[in-house]
Amino acid sequence: MTQRHALDYFFKPRSCAVVGASKDPAKPGHQCLAAMIRAGFSGELYPVNPREQEILGVKSYRSLTEIPGPLDLVVLCTPVEVVNHILDDLGERTKAKGDVRAMVVTTAGFSELCTEEGVARQETLVKRLSEYGVRLMGPNCLGVIDTRGKVDTTFLLGVDMTPGGISFVTQSGALGAWFVQAWSSHPGPVGFSKMVSLGNMADVNIVELVEYLGQDDTTTVIGLYLEGTGDPRALLEAASEAAKRKPVIVLKTGRTSEGGRAASSHTGSMAGKDQIWDGAFRQYGLLRVNTMDELLDAMRSFDKLPLPTGNRLFVITHAGGPGVYTTDLVFETGEVVLATVGDEVKQNLKRSLPPHANVCTPDGLIDMTASGTVAQHAWATEYLLSQPEVDGAMVMDMQIPFFSIAQLSRELGETYKRLRENGVSKPLLAVMLHGRWAEEGRALFEAAGVPTYDSPDRAVAAFRNMVKYASIKRRLANRHRWNGSWEAPSGVARMLTETAAQGLLEKYGVSFPATKSALTLDEAVSAARQIGYPVVMKVLSPDIAHKTEVGGVCLDLRDEDGVKRAYTMMLESVGKSAPGARIEGVLVQKMVSGGVEMIVGGLVDPVFGPVIMAGSGGILTELVKDTVFRLAPVDREEAMAMLHQLKGYKMLLGFRGKGPYDVGALADLIVRLSELVCKEKIKEVELNPVKVLKEGCIAVDALMWAYAGS
Amino acid sequence: MTQRHALDYFFKPRSCAVVGASKDPAKPGHQCLAAMIRAGFSGELYPVNPREQEILGVKSYRSLTEIPGPLDLVVLCTPVEVVNHILDDLGERTKAKGDVRAMVVTTAGFSELCTEEGVARQETLVKRLSEYGVRLMGPNCLGVIDTRGKVDTTFLLGVDMTPGGISFVTQSGALGAWFVQAWSSHPGPVGFSKMVSLGNMADVNIVELVEYLGQDDTTTVIGLYLEGTGDPRALLEAASEAAKRKPVIVLKTGRTSEGGRAASSHTGSMAGKDQIWDGAFRQYGLLRVNTMDELLDAMRSFDKLPLPTGNRLFVITHAGGPGVYTTDLVFETGEVVLATVGDEVKQNLKRSLPPHANVCTPDGLIDMTASGTVAQHAWATEYLLSQPEVDGAMVMDMQIPFFSIAQLSRELGETYKRLRENGVSKPLLAVMLHGRWAEEGRALFEAAGVPTYDSPDRAVAAFRNMVKYASIKRRLANRHRWNGSWEAPSGVARMLTETAAQGLLEKYGVSFPATKSALTLDEAVSAARQIGYPVVMKVLSPDIAHKTEVGGVCLDLRDEDGVKRAYTMMLESVGKSAPGARIEGVLVQKMVSGGVEMIVGGLVDPVFGPVIMAGSGGILTELVKDTVFRLAPVDREEAMAMLHQLKGYKMLLGFRGKGPYDVGALADLIVRLSELVCKEKIKEVELNPVKVLKEGCIAVDALMWAYAGS
Repeated sequence: MTQRHALDYFFKPRSCAVVGASKDPAKPGHQCLAAMIRAGFSGELYPVNPREQEILGVKSYRSLTEIPGPLDLVVLCTPVEVVNHILDDLGERTKAKGDVRAMVVTTAGFSELCTEEGVARQETLVKRLSEYGVRLMGPNCLGVIDTRGKVDTTFLLGVDMTPGGISFVTQSGALGAWFVQAWSSHPGPVGFSKMVSLGNMADVNIVELVEYLGQDDTTTVIGLYLEGTGDPRALLEAASEAAKRKPVIVLKTGRTSEGGRAASSHTGSMAGKDQIWDGAFRQYGLLRVNTMDELLDAMRSFDKLPLPTGNRLFVITHAGGPGVYTTDLVFETGEVVLATVGDEVKQNLKRSLPPHANVCTPDGLIDMTASGTVAQHAWATEYLLSQPEVDGAMVMDMQIPFFSIAQLSRELGETYKRLRENGVSKPLLAVMLHGRWAEEGRALFEAAGVPTYDSPDRAVAAFRNMVKYASIKRRLANRHRWNGSWEAPSGVARMLTETAAQGLLEKYGVSFPATKSALTLDEAVSAARQIGYPVVMKVLSPDIAHKTEVGGVCLDLRDEDGVKRAYTMMLESVGKSAPGARIEGVLVQKMVSGGVEMIVGGLVDPVFGPVIMAGSGGILTELVKDTVFRLAPVDREEAMAMLHQLKGYKMLLGFRGKGPYDVGALADLIVRLSELVCKEKIKEVELNPVKVLKEGCIAVDALMWAYAGS
Repeated sequence: MTQRHALDYFFKPRSCAVVGASKDPAKPGHQCLAAMIRAGFSGELYPVNPREQEILGVKSYRSLTEIPGPLDLVVLCTPVEVVNHILDDLGERTKAKGDVRAMVVTTAGFSELCTEEGVARQETLVKRLSEYGVRLMGPNCLGVIDTRGKVDTTFLLGVDMTPGGISFVTQSGALGAWFVQAWSSHPGPVGFSKMVSLGNMADVNIVELVEYLGQDDTTTVIGLYLEGTGDPRALLEAASEAAKRKPVIVLKTGRTSEGGRAASSHTGSMAGKDQIWDGAFRQYGLLRVNTMDELLDAMRSFDKLPLPTGNRLFVITHAGGPGVYTTDLVFETGEVVLATVGDEVKQNLKRSLPPHANVCTPDGLIDMTASGTVAQHAWATEYLLSQPEVDGAMVMDMQIPFFSIAQLSRELGETYKRLRENGVSKPLLAVMLHGRWAEEGRALFEAAGVPTYDSPDRAVAAFRNMVKYASIKRRLANRHRWNGSWEAPSGVARMLTETAAQGLLEKYGVSFPATKSALTLDEAVSAARQIGYPVVMKVLSPDIAHKTEVGGVCLDLRDEDGVKRAYTMMLESVGKSAPGARIEGVLVQKMVSGGVEMIVGGLVDPVFGPVIMAGSGGILTELVKDTVFRLAPVDREEAMAMLHQLKGYKMLLGFRGKGPYDVGALADLIVRLSELVCKEKIKEVELNPVKVLKEGCIAVDALMWAYAGS
C-alpha cells in the first residue's frame, strides 16, 4: 500500500467516530451521524455518547478510549464546553493506541468570536492535537464531503453523492451548503469529488488543501471561496502550480470596503485590498469569477467538457429573439467571438436547413425558426463542430409542441459522444429555455456529457471562462516559483527628499531629467542656465508630499526672468499653504516635453509583501482609476501584461497621429522598480508622472517613504 | 356597457374562431385550439376546418361565413398559401354580418422574409383587413394571452393562467415563450395579466399596445422586449406617459453592432444606435434591464411589492459567507446602500438575537449564525422594517436541519401581511439558498406577497430596480410631451466652413473666442495683433474636417515671429497631407487657456430625429467613450442629467485644486444646441472642444454638415 498523505485520513478514513452523536435530531451530532450513514460510509462508524447504547441503529460508545478497533478520523460535534473533556479522552486513547490521525471540529466558539477566551480555547485545541499527532480541520467548520470516500461530516440536507471531478474548498460553511444544494437540485446529477468547509483554519489551511487537490487524481477542477488569508503568496503559489494541470477558480468576496469589513469580522482573517488580489489572480493564473452562479457553472463545465483551443463559438437555435440576445452577450464578453465559416459551409447549411432559416446573419448564428427539426439541429451541430473555424458550439432551444427537447438530447447527445470518441475535442453547451420545462431532456444531455444551462447568459459566461483558462494554461506552462523572500516591515517610515529618492531609484536604472538643487535664487538661476531652458522648478521639502497642491511646482520656465518670478511666487505660495514645512531649497529640472504620462509605483503591503503598480497618468487615474497591481517582482512579460490591461494602453501604442511610444522601456522600468520594492526597506514609492517618449522613458517626479536604516 | 377599445377584442373577445384548427397535434392550429380550451375560454369557440366536423370535442365549421353567432376574434393558423382564400371567406362574412373586429395572424411568410413576395403578401393582408374594419395582430406572431379574458392564442406548453398584474409585450415570440415558461416553473404562482407577441407589427404596433396597457387597470407593470421600431419617439412618449403611473421595463437587444445586424434580419425593423436608445430610455423614464432574468425578477417584484421610498436595504441572514457576498453586491450597485440604524436599535437587536450573532458589522447586515431561530428572524425583520432608517429588507436563509424555511415563510409571511395591513409600505424580499430545496416555503412566501429569489444577486438587482423606478416616478410627474416635430432630412449634406458654422451657432448663443480670417501672411499677422497674443491659427478649408490630423492647427502663438513661422509650416504641412484640398486662408483666434475640455454635438438621425450629445473632451472621449446622448430638444434639467452621467463630471466640479467650472453655462449651451438641431436643416454638428471656464464656456472649434438651402 502506498504511503498515505496526512489529509487522506479526512477524505478516505477507514474508520470514523462521531463524538457528540445524539438521538435528538435538533443536535448537530445527530445530523452528522445521519449524514455519514446516508453517505454510505463503508468503514467502521462509531457514535460516541456517554449516555447511549445505540444511535440511529449503530452501536454507540461512551468514550473514544472504549472504541475497540483502529480509529482514523474523529468528528467533534459537542458543545464547546466539553471540548477539553473530549481532548482528555483523546489523549488517553493516543497513549493507549496512538491511532487517531485526523479530527474535524464542527463546534464553534473559538477564535472566530474575536474574544480572549475564544482565542485561548483555539490555542489549547491546536496545541493538544499537535501533541497527539492529530491533524485538525476547523474548528467552526462543516468539515468534508468526499463522494468516493463516502464521507460526509456536514449536517446538510440533500447531498447528492454522485462522484465527479469537482472539488470545492470554502471559507464559509454556508457557501458550501449553497454549493451542495444547488448541485443536488440540478436536473442531471452534476457529480463532485470533494467539498471542504475550512472554518477557522487553525491547522489544515487552504494552502495545504490546494496542494493536495492539485495532486488528487479524482479532482479535475478546483473551486475556492475565499474571504482572506494571512499568507496570500503561499496560496497563490500553490494554486498556480495546481493551475498548470487543472483550472483553479476563485470567488473572492470583500471586493468592496464594506464587504471587507464583514469578512474580517466573519472569519477573523485579513481581507486584503481587492485590486491587489485581482492583479495577483491574473499573475498566478487563477480564474476569478464574480458570482456564485458563475462559479457553479464554470466548475461543472470544466469537469464535463474538453477545453476549447480558441474563442470562436457557434450558436444554433430555433429561437430568434434569444439568438439576437445571445449575439449581444457574446460581443460584450470582449473575449468570445461568433465563429465565421466559409461560403461553402454556409451554402451547405442553407441547403440542408429549413428554407426560412436565418443562416449566418450575423456570422456564427443559425436561427432555424420553429420549423427546424431535431434531426436538422443534430446534423448542423455535428457539421459545425467539424469545421476548423469553430472552437465550440451552443445549442439553444425550448420545449414546444413541435420540438421535443428529450428527443434532441437523445440524438444530439449520441452525436456528441460519437464525436468525442472520434477525437473531436471541442465543447458543446446546451441552453434550455426555460430549463425546468425540459428536465427530462436536460438529464439526458447531462448523462451524455453535455452540460445544460437555464439561460444563454450562463452558457456564454461558462464558455468565456473555458476560453480564459485555456489561455492561462498555455501561459503557466513556463511559470517558475519566486524563490525570494520578504520581511514584514517594522519601524516608522519617513518620506525621503526628492534628491534622496532619485539617488536610490537611479541605482535601479530609473532615469530622471537633468536636475540641480539650489538654496538661493542666484543658485537657481545658475542651475537653470547650466541645465538649459525650458526648466521646471519644484520646492524641496521633507514635509511636502504633494507639491502641486501647495503651489510648489512651476512648469515650463523659458528664461531667467521666468525663473526669478517663479522662485519668488513659489516660496510665497508654499509659505502660505504649508506654513510649518521645512524648506530645503528648490530643485531645478530640465523640462520634458511630449510623451505620454503614466504612473508607476510600489509598496510593501503587510499581507502581500512587495507589490508593484502601473497606471495611466493625469486625468485617467483620477476619473477612471486606470491602475493595475501585481505582486513584485515581475518579469518583462508580466510587466507587458500589466500595460495591456490598462485602458490607457492605446495611448502608448499611438493615437491621433502621435506615438507610438516606447512601451518596452516602460515595461523595463516596471521590472526594475519591482526589484527595488523587493530589495530595499521601503514602504511606498511612486513615480508620477513617468513620461514615456518615442525612445525611452523618464521619471519626472519621485516620492518615496523608507524605513530607517535603508 | 362602456365603449370597447379596439384592442379589447384581442384580450376579452366574446367569441373566437381558430382558422386552420386541426386534429393533427403537429399542426399549429391544433395547438392553438388546445391552448384556448386549456385557458378556459368562456366565450364561444369555433374551430374552422373545411374537412372536420369536430376537433378536440368542439364542433367545427367549414368556413367563417358558416359560423352562426356573433364573432369578435379570428386566429389564423393556416399555411401562408391559403391566407388569401381565408381573407375571401372573411370578406364574405363581413358583407353578411360585419362582426369580426380583430385577427391574430400566427402564420409566417410575410415581410420578415425580406423578399418582394413576402412584402407584397403583407401589404395585401393589411389592405384587405383594413377594408373589412378588422384590426390585425401579426403576422408571424404568437398573439396574445390574457389570464382574465381566458384567451391564449399561442401554441405554448404549460401556461400558468394565474391572474396577476404583469403585462409583457415582445417583438420575439420565443422571448414570450421563455417568459411564460419561466413564470410557470416558479415555486409560487407568479401571476400575470397579458402576454403579447407582436410579430411583424403590420397594424397593431408596440406604441398602441403600450398606450393601452398604460390605461389598463389590470396591468401594474409593463415589460417590453424590444429589437427596434420605426418610430422610437412615439414609443418613448407613450411609455413615458405610462411610466408616470406604473413601471415600464425594457429589455432592448441589438446593443452591439453584431446584435444589431441579427435584429435587423430577424424582424426587419430598424435597430437604432444603442447609445441613443440608452440615453432616450433615461430621458423618458423607461427602466432598462440587461438580462432576461433581471426583467423577469423586476416585473414580479414590482407587481408584488410596494415601492421603497429610499435606497437603504437591511439584510437579515443566518448564512455568514452569503452575507459577506451580499454586502459586495449592494456596494457594487452604486445605487443601493446598506441601512444604518441607531445605537439603541443595535442594542435591542443584540439583546434579542443569539449571543454570537454578528449584528451590524457592517451596518445593514445581521448574520444570526446557524443558531438563529425562525422566531428571531421574524422578530428582527418586523423590528427593522419599522425603523425609519430602513427602506426595505431582505431575508436570506437556507434549509438546514435546524431551520425550516416553510416555518419561516409561514411566520414571516403572516408578519409581513400584518405590517402591510397596518400601513407599512416597504418591500421585503426573500432569498432562499438554494431555492429548490425550499419550494414549499417559497410557495408560502409568494402566497403571502413576499417574492422569493434563488440568489442574493437577483434580489439585490430587483431592489435596485425598484429604487430606480421610485426615483423615475418622482421625476416624471412634471414631464411634458414635446409638441414639436421634425422632418427626415433629404438631399446631400455638405460641410460648412468654420466661419459659416460659427455664424449659425452664434445665432443660438454659442460663444467663440475672437476670430478673424486671413488670406495672406500679412493679414494673419495683422489679425493676431488686433486680437492680442497668444493666438491660435487654423487652416480654413471646406474639404478638411479634422484639421489637427493634417497639421492644420497651431496653438499658443505668442508673438509675430510665432505667427509667421506657424503660417508657413502649416500651409506646407496641409499641402503635403491633404494635397487636393481647397484652402480658403486661415483663421486667427484668441487662445483660450485653462478650463475643462468637453464635447457637445448633435445630429439628425434618420430614425430618432434630432439627437444631442455631450462628452468629456480629449483623452477620455477616445479611451473610455465618455459620451451621453438624448433626443433633442432637452431642457436645462435634462442637460444637467446628461452631465451628471459623465465620468468627466468630476472634472467640472473641480479637481486637484482646480475649478469648480461653470457647469450651468455648459448645460445652457447643450439646451441651445439641442434647439438648433431641431430647427435647422443640419445633418451633424460638433463643438470640440468646448472650454468650460470658471465663468461661462466657449466653443473653440466647430464642425457642421448642413443640407442645401439651410
